[in-house]
Amino acid sequence: MPARILDGTALAQQIRTELGDRVARFTQEAGRPPGLGVVLVGDNAGSEIYVRNKLRAAVEAGFRADLERLPATATLDDVLALVARLNGSADHDGVLVQAPLPPGVGAGAAQAVFEAIDPAKDVDGLHPVNVGYLVQNRARLVPCTPSGIIELLDRSGIVIAGARAVVIGRSDIVGKPMALLLLHRHATVTICHSKTRDLAAVAAEADILVAAIGHAALVRRAFVKPGATVIDVGANRLTDPGAARDLFGAGSARMAAFERRGSAVVGDVHPEVAEVAGAMTPVPGGVGPLTIAMLMSNTLRAAELSRSRRSR
Amino acid sequence: MPARILDGTALAQQIRTELGDRVARFTQEAGRPPGLGVVLVGDNAGSEIYVRNKLRAAVEAGFRADLERLPATATLDDVLALVARLNGSADHDGVLVQAPLPPGVGAGAAQAVFEAIDPAKDVDGLHPVNVGYLVQNRARLVPCTPSGIIELLDRSGIVIAGARAVVIGRSDIVGKPMALLLLHRHATVTICHSKTRDLAAVAAEADILVAAIGHAALVRRAFVKPGATVIDVGANRLTDPGAARDLFGAGSARMAAFERRGSAVVGDVHPEVAEVAGAMTPVPGGVGPLTIAMLMSNTLRAAELSRSRRSR
Repeated sequence: MPARILDGTALAQQIRTELGDRVARFTQEAGRPPGLGVVLVGDNAGSEIYVRNKLRAAVEAGFRADLERLPATATLDDVLALVARLNGSADHDGVLVQAPLPPGVGAGAAQAVFEAIDPAKDVDGLHPVNVGYLVQNRARLVPCTPSGIIELLDRSGIVIAGARAVVIGRSDIVGKPMALLLLHRHATVTICHSKTRDLAAVAAEADILVAAIGHAALVRRAFVKPGATVIDVGANRLTDPGAARDLFGAGSARMAAFERRGSAVVGDVHPEVAEVAGAMTPVPGGVGPLTIAMLMSNTLRAAELSRSRRSR
Repeated sequence: MPARILDGTALAQQIRTELGDRVARFTQEAGRPPGLGVVLVGDNAGSEIYVRNKLRAAVEAGFRADLERLPATATLDDVLALVARLNGSADHDGVLVQAPLPPGVGAGAAQAVFEAIDPAKDVDGLHPVNVGYLVQNRARLVPCTPSGIIELLDRSGIVIAGARAVVIGRSDIVGKPMALLLLHRHATVTICHSKTRDLAAVAAEADILVAAIGHAALVRRAFVKPGATVIDVGANRLTDPGAARDLFGAGSARMAAFERRGSAVVGDVHPEVAEVAGAMTPVPGGVGPLTIAMLMSNTLRAAELSRSRRSR
């Protein structure tokens, strides 16, 4: 029996609908909608798409959404000045700086920029103080992808407490916060990475397997315990026709789409995993839409918290 | 062949000796020794012993060390006022508030107090911003017990990178920072806790097993892969003569000591584990002395960082 497909697009829509009432109430009481400021530095093609999707979702949710662009030649000081302006803005409750920053900004710039964002507006949850709150199980603003995955598991009826969870990947934005959220929900959590020995065998211990590696189709059948839930965080652009044919199968609808466009976005999980997993997220249409829905949720939360602080 | 015993007392002495030159240099350049302020609220007997050991170690290391006492009737505001005074003190580079706080201070008081400590003086590494830096692999001040365990592993020639590490316990002070430190040193890390199913089997996957449960002798032979390194963070006071006889054996030197004193401090690891582990830490004389040595190291580091900031 093939895996149940966990439809991230439908769940994201449901989450956004649920936010609607709170957005309306905030807008009425504050006399303005919740506001999101997005900083985009340079002209990374992938970032352009991500940012466009975030802005569109924000506008559809009834938010004010502003794109603030800086050229690829911007300095760290330019970025920090822009962040300072958004921190001080009464119209913006959430501020995010799209990663990656262009190399010209300097090594370590991303951490300096994330740390410059007002923690109360840090809707990506990357400021160290928000990371610390997450570790201490009193999270305020949590990175959107892992919190979206928790929503997905909960709303799909997948039990986290007592499960063995394996997270492949240890990034600050997905792997580590994912592990912490699963731990606080009482999973027994293992974190794997490039130095893990016999990765397939470790992954196959999981009842819940989260793949956040950034390597197309790395997770094969042998990585998956029969019946496990597999969450695919990968979004890898595939341009090699041979690799595409291996993944999609000659003559398939996805192969035809690949041939039309010359590329496709594929996850970290190989399609053959559907034959052994109990449930899995597709790419696209799995984790991606949930990430954006949680960004809306974080922005609204930041707006509500800021308002309740001001009215005290 | 019985397990190699990892002598924490000797290693702690070695670490403190290595700090000696830096302490002398700091004292000469700053015109004062590094200073540690310890806040003790109430009269918890265990805390009295811990605090006394910390103060003695600080004085032996050539530090200024001040004990600031508050009665068990102190309010949260009393504690915060004392912390604020130590934050502002030019003589104190490190500030720690001994846990646990008495119940009268109020629920959630510990986190409020830890968060009130100047992050630059937070030698226990419990301020959320220091926790965030640790997660982001740019740690400044790290909790002393897990950083002491890393020192112990390194100085004992135990390879962390690529090893499977299992941490039993998910506290903010030991379990979670331990898992993060091992992860950043490229171990494949699993965190277990009270909700973990088949704990013995999960623990037995470990090449490096860290027991930080607070339950006397819970870790038995079946928890340990032959040849594994077992780190015992437990310090449990045993008063039941039957349990003591089971652990120490009738007629043993430790049983005789138990009978003299009426109690003994025992770890989370059962003595029988020595028959299967490759290496293990004793209790007492294992992790405890290392924790105190790392507190000295953190205080000196805080002093040096503060001085280098002021001289810029």
